[in-house]
Amino acid sequence: MIRAGLIGYGYWGPNLARNLNAHEDCVLARVNDMSEKRRKLAAQTFPAVEVVADAAAITQATDIDLVVIATPVFTHHDFAKAALLNGKHVWVEKPMTSNLDQAKELVDIAAERGLTIMVDHTFLFTGAVETMREVIDNGELGDPYYFDSVRINLGIFQHDINVIWDLAPHDFSIMDHLIGPNARGVSAHGCDHFGTGLVDMAYVSVFYDNNLMAHFHLNWLSPVKIRRTIIGGSKRMLVWDDLNMDERVKIYDKGMEVTTQEGMYRVLATPRIGEMRAPIVPNTEALSAEVDYFMRCLNEGKQPFNDGQAGLRIVSLLEATDHSLKHGGKQITL
Amino acid sequence: MIRAGLIGYGYWGPNLARNLNAHEDCVLARVNDMSEKRRKLAAQTFPAVEVVADAAAITQATDIDLVVIATPVFTHHDFAKAALLNGKHVWVEKPMTSNLDQAKELVDIAAERGLTIMVDHTFLFTGAVETMREVIDNGELGDPYYFDSVRINLGIFQHDINVIWDLAPHDFSIMDHLIGPNARGVSAHGCDHFGTGLVDMAYVSVFYDNNLMAHFHLNWLSPVKIRRTIIGGSKRMLVWDDLNMDERVKIYDKGMEVTTQEGMYRVLATPRIGEMRAPIVPNTEALSAEVDYFMRCLNEGKQPFNDGQAGLRIVSLLEATDHSLKHGGKQITL
Amino acid sequence: MIRAGLIGYGYWGPNLARNLNAHEDCVLARVNDMSEKRRKLAAQTFPAVEVVADAAAITQATDIDLVVIATPVFTHHDFAKAALLNGKHVWVEKPMTSNLDQAKELVDIAAERGLTIMVDHTFLFTGAVETMREVIDNGELGDPYYFDSVRINLGIFQHDINVIWDLAPHDFSIMDHLIGPNARGVSAHGCDHFGTGLVDMAYVSVFYDNNLMAHFHLNWLSPVKIRRTIIGGSKRMLVWDDLNMDERVKIYDKGMEVTTQEGMYRVLATPRIGEMRAPIVPNTEALSAEVDYFMRCLNEGKQPFNDGQAGLRIVSLLEATDHSLKHGGKQITL
Amino acid sequence: MIRAGLIGYGYWGPNLARNLNAHEDCVLARVNDMSEKRRKLAAQTFPAVEVVADAAAITQATDIDLVVIATPVFTHHDFAKAALLNGKHVWVEKPMTSNLDQAKELVDIAAERGLTIMVDHTFLFTGAVETMREVIDNGELGDPYYFDSVRINLGIFQHDINVIWDLAPHDFSIMDHLIGPNARGVSAHGCDHFGTGLVDMAYVSVFYDNNLMAHFHLNWLSPVKIRRTIIGGSKRMLVWDDLNMDERVKIYDKGMEVTTQEGMYRVLATPRIGEMRAPIVPNTEALSAEVDYFMRCLNEGKQPFNDGQAGLRIVSLLEATDHSLKHGGKQITL
Repeated sequence: MIRAGLIGYGYWGPNLARNLNAHEDCVLARVNDMSEKRRKLAAQTFPAVEVVADAAAITQATDIDLVVIATPVFTHHDFAKAALLNGKHVWVEKPMTSNLDQAKELVDIAAERGLTIMVDHTFLFTGAVETMREVIDNGELGDPYYFDSVRINLGIFQHDINVIWDLAPHDFSIMDHLIGPNARGVSAHGCDHFGTGLVDMAYVSVFYDNNLMAHFHLNWLSPVKIRRTIIGGSKRMLVWDDLNMDERVKIYDKGMEVTTQEGMYRVLATPRIGEMRAPIVPNTEALSAEVDYFMRCLNEGKQPFNDGQAGLRIVSLLEATDHSLKHGGKQITL
Repeated sequence: MIRAGLIGYGYWGPNLARNLNAHEDCVLARVNDMSEKRRKLAAQTFPAVEVVADAAAITQATDIDLVVIATPVFTHHDFAKAALLNGKHVWVEKPMTSNLDQAKELVDIAAERGLTIMVDHTFLFTGAVETMREVIDNGELGDPYYFDSVRINLGIFQHDINVIWDLAPHDFSIMDHLIGPNARGVSAHGCDHFGTGLVDMAYVSVFYDNNLMAHFHLNWLSPVKIRRTIIGGSKRMLVWDDLNMDERVKIYDKGMEVTTQEGMYRVLATPRIGEMRAPIVPNTEALSAEVDYFMRCLNEGKQPFNDGQAGLRIVSLLEATDHSLKHGGKQITL
Repeated sequence: MIRAGLIGYGYWGPNLARNLNAHEDCVLARVNDMSEKRRKLAAQTFPAVEVVADAAAITQATDIDLVVIATPVFTHHDFAKAALLNGKHVWVEKPMTSNLDQAKELVDIAAERGLTIMVDHTFLFTGAVETMREVIDNGELGDPYYFDSVRINLGIFQHDINVIWDLAPHDFSIMDHLIGPNARGVSAHGCDHFGTGLVDMAYVSVFYDNNLMAHFHLNWLSPVKIRRTIIGGSKRMLVWDDLNMDERVKIYDKGMEVTTQEGMYRVLATPRIGEMRAPIVPNTEALSAEVDYFMRCLNEGKQPFNDGQAGLRIVSLLEATDHSLKHGGKQITL
Repeated sequence: MIRAGLIGYGYWGPNLARNLNAHEDCVLARVNDMSEKRRKLAAQTFPAVEVVADAAAITQATDIDLVVIATPVFTHHDFAKAALLNGKHVWVEKPMTSNLDQAKELVDIAAERGLTIMVDHTFLFTGAVETMREVIDNGELGDPYYFDSVRINLGIFQHDINVIWDLAPHDFSIMDHLIGPNARGVSAHGCDHFGTGLVDMAYVSVFYDNNLMAHFHLNWLSPVKIRRTIIGGSKRMLVWDDLNMDERVKIYDKGMEVTTQEGMYRVLATPRIGEMRAPIVPNTEALSAEVDYFMRCLNEGKQPFNDGQAGLRIVSLLEATDHSLKHGGKQITL
């Protein structure tokens, strides 16, 4: 039985608490929040759980195996470091840390002490991403050509992070999971329309080898909500529309037939159009599946795929967008 | 009465011929095409029109006032130059020329001789673009925040031009018309998946002053067809979906209320959500309206808004994307 | 302060309990359910509320002002009658009763004793229905031409009622609320594909005076989910698509211009096409608004618009569909 | 080589002329229209074709094998009869005749003389209907449960026929082709909002044996255009949305698993949800395919499936809707 302590009972904390509490291999032992109001709410909802005002009562506790961190990004590193130094596994919300150095330090400490960090990229546990992962793994798409993601909305402006740090962790982690961890460069453009110093809309390009690129449109200022990813491949292509409840993932048997020939035009590309299919996408709660997966990883001593190293890669991409934004969209090598 | 000669009776030529022929102020006097098969078709369709094998019979003719050029891009400059030097007005398909120097030369010759060049950016004469122009001109949108355009499809690969030169002239000319001619920089990324030396998908950013940017997704390798432009403004926002026959343009009374305050977070941005309206978008043939507009310009000695200078700006943007692509997405100053 | 007792803590009961409990003018004093499991759940969720195994502890209690009935339809009459005879107001789920005689008896008893019955047609309190009601009340639509409703899905088959009794109470009550209570006839067709004796898909027509008709497609066997109502009027027309989160209600400035003329064809009808607008539809919880409305009715001694008489009209329509189904779609006069 | 004469060069006639003229086994020898203006147009478009003012020059001609009739419905019978009595095959627009007696007479005359009548139900030759026919023929849907058709629009009011006679021939012929010719009853409701004596919107139910029914919503007064047919089957279900260019036909692996059990509820129906697929629907011109099919039928002496008998069934359904409308929706036995 894993004894968990939760730091942060704000927007996402209650979902974590509910799912940790419900899992048969886990006991939610302690909850901390800075706000008295939130602590009261936690106490009411989980009468059997101890609620504490001091996070150290979790990070330094002798009866806690796992520290779950759901606080603002700039605090992730300190809480996670304290937890690791006290021999605890860590579950940390995305993005993992505020910068790459912090992420590296955490990964190193965890490695030294044989502890596990899991970064909560919840989307990786949705039915849609799992379906796409299967489709890609079984070779249906062939070689990937591109990954094009649009996540726009009339959104809540964050005060401490820009639109990329707010929205792109979802899409970067999905790209990393589906297309691969070997991104080699990043370029970003964006606008700050309100003088906050934080871009409220941005376009990010991520470059891989072999003519593969990913692109992200992130926007808090769109009149319409769009959450759509297109993945082009040499054999098939795929559209994930997360707002289309009934046909979330569509796989198109479409592509280009390319032939080489003599004469003026060496290469002839002809569109090939075949059937479309929309597989059943399971509608289970992603967070519940993720908690279950992490418990199995801890019990079996396995490293989760969304471990500290994976979280670090996302932070590395985010940090690179900051550099690129500052230098007019310059391509930053990872 | 304006006597027109048409060079090029391929894909678009027949539409030009039909509309020129139908206009009361214009006589389609002569048609030329390299291909005998196309010349035969022209002769059958327009029995009263003279069909010639030599383009010089149009550019050098004494009985022709207007030369209409609908041939591959790389030939535009030579035909247009010959026409201008022989004192003829010019209607030339988009993009105007293959490079900026050619465009400049044509603009200069026309200016010297008091001749008019009109570049056929047909989209500018659609009901949708006219509707958006009105909405912007009457101040409904307020200050523009961004112009976001997606034009993707499983498309026919062009042999001589890349996906940007093929598709972006539409969108660049619409941006230029709606948002303004003062673009100051360009950045482009893309992939060439088939070794043709021509990118088949690309992302282009265009930069203006005052935190205004435009962005273009152009793709011949998309499993789905999308033709959508979003324009964000300080007062309202607009979506043009050219595939939505019934509600092509939607205007959203949405935005951000921004207040400045003391304390930790200086700027507070709150979403404002109001009514949406879809005005009636006239469904007339754009090319017919364009021919009519050009005839009025010629008769009244007025410069069309889509004149050589406008065409030159689009070529300038296109050429800049070439440079940017070659230099890893570097921002090119216009 | 109104003291409420809730009978039935199944699918909908918890929502009622939560909203009654949260209202400042109401105390949820007691909850009853036949099932011990459900009673336990109620006790856990509402520790301050008394949970009882016998419904008579509510209907006959001296400390209860309002009995809320959320049990299967066939039990509504008996519980409501007992409550009324013991001097209590009644909130009863839709449909009000299993047949017209039962509804009449309840209405009569309530009238005699000055008690109020409210039938929970929750949809009437949604932002969408309130928006449509305003649009109709302010004359935007003109005279109504028709009311066309489609509510289809791959649905859960009910065991005790057919698809009409399951789904049509929503749509009949909306029709009654928006178009008027004076329906004068009903015709219904349907199929029972599984030999249950209950139709699983049905088409219902409802007739009013003045060339106004309503029509309903109700289906548990549809591969796609559609919830759409079209209301045609002499001035404008309206589409309510309950699955379109962002543009739930659209009002079209469309219609027919009808002119009378001499000669062969007396009447000439020409389509008129104008702007569409999508007003903001408030996204508040309908049940919360409904509870609040009922509390104000009780406190002010006002009859709610969805009172026993309104509930009776819906039961009358439902009963008429049974007769029509039995007689091959014969038109039944109400 | 079949020599064809065309009577009626109005809305549809030019399409017939073009396709007949283009077929290698057919010569369009003569065209007739009442209007001089239309005759001029025909002569211009088809210089090689004789254009005549008198239809008898076609029906009674000795050099004509096939008479193609594209005139108003009320004239179909007389032209077709004249053609048949003069030994000519007949292609007649839909609906075949104004009433059942006329249709019967034509079928009888054709049968006596060994001549072929083909009724132009063009929709049967579209890629969509052919795809659905294949899906049904190969048993994918299982036993049909229902056929639900919606064809609504803000439409042109016809002067001589109501909305059912205008629109339903399409849908009745598709139903007849896909679900079968054995309809046994009809019921219709509708409204005439403008005092023309012709309903402008209508709902029609058609009954088959074995719990199979079809239903049609036909409307000239809808603010939105919908052309959608749902076919429910025991194994799978399909949706044909004729306005969805890219995914016209979708086949859903959905249904109800029905089990019989002891106890209170004999029958238990559980939804089964599987993959959806959208096959490639060929985008060829239906009329061209239809002309080709008819030419093959004539050359091989085969009866087309859309022969006089099929046309008669559609007229029989239409006539039955007239009777039902007159008698308040009474079910009319066919």
